[in-house]
Parts: sequence; structure tokens; C-alpha cells
Amino acid sequence: MKVGGQHFRTIWLKPGNERVVQLIDQRFLPHRFVIEEVSTVEQMAAAIREMHVRGAGLIGASAGYGMYLATIEAAGSSSARFDQTMAEAAARLKATRPTAVNLTWATEQQLASIAEGKTAQEKVHLALGMAKRIAEQDEEHCRMIGQHGLNLIEQVARTKNGKPVNVLTHCNAGWLAFVNYGSALAPVYVAHDSGLALHVWVDETRPRSQGSKLTAWELGQHGVPHTIIADSAAGHLMQRGAIDLVIVGSDRTTCTGDVANKIGTYLKALAAHDNKIPFYVALPSSSFDWTIRDGSQIPIEERDADEVKYADGWRDGQMLEVSVAPEGSPAANYGFDVTPRRLVTGLITERGVCNADEKSILELFPEHAS
Amino acid sequence: MKVGGQHFRTIWLKPGNERVVQLIDQRFLPHRFVIEEVSTVEQMAAAIREMHVRGAGLIGASAGYGMYLATIEAAGSSSARFDQTMAEAAARLKATRPTAVNLTWATEQQLASIAEGKTAQEKVHLALGMAKRIAEQDEEHCRMIGQHGLNLIEQVARTKNGKPVNVLTHCNAGWLAFVNYGSALAPVYVAHDSGLALHVWVDETRPRSQGSKLTAWELGQHGVPHTIIADSAAGHLMQRGAIDLVIVGSDRTTCTGDVANKIGTYLKALAAHDNKIPFYVALPSSSFDWTIRDGSQIPIEERDADEVKYADGWRDGQMLEVSVAPEGSPAANYGFDVTPRRLVTGLITERGVCNADEKSILELFPEHAS
Repeated sequence: MKVGGQHFRTIWLKPGNERVVQLIDQRFLPHRFVIEEVSTVEQMAAAIREMHVRGAGLIGASAGYGMYLATIEAAGSSSARFDQTMAEAAARLKATRPTAVNLTWATEQQLASIAEGKTAQEKVHLALGMAKRIAEQDEEHCRMIGQHGLNLIEQVARTKNGKPVNVLTHCNAGWLAFVNYGSALAPVYVAHDSGLALHVWVDETRPRSQGSKLTAWELGQHGVPHTIIADSAAGHLMQRGAIDLVIVGSDRTTCTGDVANKIGTYLKALAAHDNKIPFYVALPSSSFDWTIRDGSQIPIEERDADEVKYADGWRDGQMLEVSVAPEGSPAANYGFDVTPRRLVTGLITERGVCNADEKSILELFPEHAS
Repeated sequence: MKVGGQHFRTIWLKPGNERVVQLIDQRFLPHRFVIEEVSTVEQMAAAIREMHVRGAGLIGASAGYGMYLATIEAAGSSSARFDQTMAEAAARLKATRPTAVNLTWATEQQLASIAEGKTAQEKVHLALGMAKRIAEQDEEHCRMIGQHGLNLIEQVARTKNGKPVNVLTHCNAGWLAFVNYGSALAPVYVAHDSGLALHVWVDETRPRSQGSKLTAWELGQHGVPHTIIADSAAGHLMQRGAIDLVIVGSDRTTCTGDVANKIGTYLKALAAHDNKIPFYVALPSSSFDWTIRDGSQIPIEERDADEVKYADGWRDGQMLEVSVAPEGSPAANYGFDVTPRRLVTGLITERGVCNADEKSILELFPEHAS
């Protein structure tokens, strides 16, 4: 996607030096556009943990590149030591964000790929190829999600008599959350580019404000009309008929259709259901967890309470943290919640749209039927 | 209630000078405890509009004192001019916060009282008496709400085998929102003081953070265990069984039981309903609107979008505003939403607890039956 007229992905190999990965350090958006260089798996784990990069697909792609960087670090060691180093690297990357299933998916893809190599040099080469493929596949899957989601938006548009379609989204599931295009926002971009009138209500998404900082920035850069709202406001807007459909992303969706996504998604799904508004979840198949059948079993990441007690924002040319709570008051910071499948109208995947139930999901992805 | 061991109400006449009203300027809490002096109706209107004071009951009491200050200002004018000045004062005060019905209630009480006076001096005297009575009645009603709500909390406590009762509240409906005691928090304080174990989950309540700034501060000063959460988190906590009951306040409740309260209340009511958790609304009868039968007719205040695009917090000994959104992105800022009566388990009033329906409400308040 474009930033100031120039094309960017969220992560890429440094031109001229394939031992270095470059990525957009998203902590400074929308105020500064910072590119970070990462050359060790530990640096990559820190970038994921501290949310320089975040979002289901981008976390997966970052883990893929992280595993590749680990092979470079391990290349001087013995074969047994090499395998142990890679297992440790995978464990370290997976531990950074416990809810995100793409981490598991990407590291396992890499371990399987690396196992095919006989020499360290071969393993490095295979890991590089797989890291690129993970990123390319993410990009391609998001592109397809955009195409399939377009049909849904067009259906709604036909009922609007030329008035803009109002989409609500939560958190950031745009191109900044993936390698390119995004999941929830991919249909929005495709619809906008095809000339369809639409407007996006953007939940600010406390405590880290990925909605107001990232989604609003993305949409603004691309010229998509949008309005930022407090996380509490969507129910009121739905009651007043100001939202036509909801599209969110997912950090992990069970094979039965329960959806883990940014904390607060469940409340929006309840409000959509109460107001008979379609609630769609857009996700590439890499975000399915084929092993868990009940969403309540998805581990929910708890983050530092200070993210709730402080607000991070821009003032006088720098990022500043201000206190918004009494010093002595404790806070709790759950990163995700689980929206039960009964509240989900449909899943938008790279292979098409399906219902949020096991049968429909497996019809699209029969290779995962047991 | 106590602040640093000293007893305070939120608003009072200046000792030794009854022409000046003193109030806690809540904009600086929890970081500084500031007392403001107000001596004209215009100053009082500004204090309400800019939220130096806020909350259903305190807004009503402030309007009562504001009308009294207006009589002092009008005292030199002719009788006809006096009445016109008072009508203008009432209109000015009512316009400050369009959703809050206590403004209408308090200014009408004052206009009726002032009409009884023959001379300007009598009118000033009557207005002073009424301002004091409005404040005293608010205090007494909140005290009674605490007593009635205690029974509900005790019922829940009996199911907990000595474990703390977990209460969720939204925004601030504590003593800072009234003259004393509060509405939603009055039962919490009474229960805590009676030795019952309880813990309060405090929604931070963006965009103005009345939960994390005021409710957490109040509870902390009183020694009530509490935890601040992002507004999005309550659904997850309910799903995991961490919330036993919800108690919120109300800025206006129709005679049929629809509840206008701080934006986001509706989402919490939906989540409570989905998880079979009791959802109570605590309000003095001054917050009933006896003229509106349908909650969707309650005017919803829209505030400055910058409250959403910026976060106000404390740093280096001062309040600072930091930007949390792209400069070019618009935002919308709805102050309230309406929770339909079907989601409300009961109303806690000064006369007891009733169902959220017209018949039950009128059984408690038969003088309003038409």
C-alpha cells in the first residue's frame, strides 16, 4: 500500500543485504514513519513482544523472517546444536504473543522446511525461501479476502440508494496488520478503489489505540472517508442506524468458528446481533486453529497494566506517556476476547465466505478434515 | 465522603460568604484536589459545560445553586426583568448538558420556588433555601439508594461463600457525581462499610476517563478494592465469571424504564444479559423523565471531537493533552447511549428497588401517575 505516494509492505528484506530484515516500527504512527532494521531472532522477538509489529498476518510473517535470522545465527554450530537452536528460536517467538496462532503456524512451517536441509547452508537457504513464501502467501491471501469481501459490501450497497455503506471495524486489521492489503480492511480498500461509496467507523481501541493510530492513518493515506469513535460508541451508532455492517479481523479462530480478536470485539458482536447488523470476520487460513474446538480454550494474553493506566500520544514532536489513573489503583489488561460463533454472520477467507461453523469451514478447507 | 481524612461534599456555600459557591473542580482529579469558587450563573454554566462538575445529581445541585446566584445578580432589576433574567438563567443552565434531566428538574424547582416570592429579597431568600434543599435531598436520596442496594449485594454475597462480590461499574456514579454518597457506588460504600467483601471492576470510560480518574480515585480514598479496565474488557470478564453484578447510574431514565447513561452502558448491558448477570441502574427520582416514554427520544449530547483525538493526563506535575490520532482524521463524540428497559434487571431508587417498567416505577412513585 502507499505511504506518501510510495509503495510499502510492512516487512521486507533489506535491499542489498539479505541478512537484515526491515520493518515499519508501528509504535510511532501516525506521527512518525520509522523503519527499523532487525538482524537477530532476539531482536525480532522483542519487536513482536513490544508491538513494533503487530496484527495476525504480520506477526506470522515476522516470525517467519525471525526463524530465518535464527538459521543464520545457528549456521556455525553442529547439526544437533542447530536443531536445538531452532527449536529454542521457535519457542521464543511463540511466547511473545500467546493468543496469536499465526506465530505457531509460521514457526512450524519454518521448522518443517528447515528439516529438509542437509547442511547448515541449505537450511539457511530453505528458511529464506520459506520466510519469503509466508510473506507472499499472506499478501496473496489478503488480496483474495478483499475480492470475496467486496461482494458482501456490494450487496449492502444495493440497499443504500447510492448513500455510502457504513462499515464498523475494531482495532487494526488493515495492511499494517499483515504484509499488505489487510484482512478486515482489504474489502474496504477494494470497494473504495472500485468507486463504491463507503465510510468507516473506526473504534479507537484502547488501551493501545491501534484503531485511532493505525487504522485511521491507513484509511486517511488511502483516501477512505472515516470517523474515529470511542470504543463505547458503536452500540449507540447501531441503534441509530448508522452502521450497515461490521468487519473485524481475528488473531485466532477455532475450527468450529469461535473468534479470538482484540478485546472488545465480543461487545461489538453483541450489539450487531441486537441490531440485526451483519458481523463478519475476515481472516486468512493461517489464523485458524485446527486443534481447538472451543473458543474458551484459547489462551488470552495479559499485558502490562500500565498500558491502561497511561495514554501514549504525541506532543511537541515526541511520543509522551501521560497518567490517566490514580498511582495507587491497580489495572488489568486483557488483550483479546472470544466472540462465540453464534454471533458471527460469516467468515471471509482467501477461499471465499463461509458460515462460522465447523461444517462450513471444512467445506472450504477440506484438507483439515480429520 | 472523605478526602485525605477530611469530610467533603462536592458543592457547598462558602463559609462566611453565602454569595459564593465552592465546588471541587474535578478536571484535575486524581492528580490534584482543586476547589473552585463560583459567584455568577455564567460561571456555573461554564463549570457544568466544561465538566468541572459532572454527574446527574451534582449537575442538578449545581444548577440549583446557579439559579440562586442568578437571583442575586437579578436582585437590582424590576420585577418583570427579574423573571426574564431567571428564565434566561434556566435556559442557559439547561443548554449546558442536553441529556441530563436533572438540569431541567432543578431549574424548574427553582423557578416555581422563586415565583412564590414577592420582593427580590424574598426571591433570593427562597432560591437559597431551594438550592440547599435540592442538595440535601440529593444527599438523602443517595443515602437511601445505598441502603436499598445493600440488600441486592448481600443477596449475591450469600452465593459467594465468603469470596468477594465482584461489581462492574461504568463511568463515575459515585459521590463525585452527586452531592454525596453517589448512586451506583452508594450500595458499594454501604456494603464495604458493613464489612462485606467486595471488589469493583472500573471501566476507564473513554474519552474523558471518569472511571479511571474519578471512580478509581473515590474507591481508593475509601479503601474499596478495585481494578481499572479498558472499556472493552468487561465482556471478557463476564464470560470468565469474574463479574457478579453490574451497577451503573443514569443521566435520564424514562417513566417506562429506558436508561440514558454514559456512552458504552448499552454494551455492558448486552454483555450482562448474554452472560445472565444482573444489571442494575441506581438513580434518585430526580433523574426520571416523566414526560418521555421512549428512550430513543432522549437527546444525546455530542461533544467536541478532540476529546476522542486527544488524551488528557498527568505528567511532570501538570495536566497535558497528547494526540492519539492522525491530525487529519475526523472523530465523533457521543456522550451517552440508551439502554432499553428489556436489558435492565432493576432500578435502585431512594424508595426501593423496582423493575424497569412503567407499572413498577409508578408503584414506587404514584404521584407521577397521570
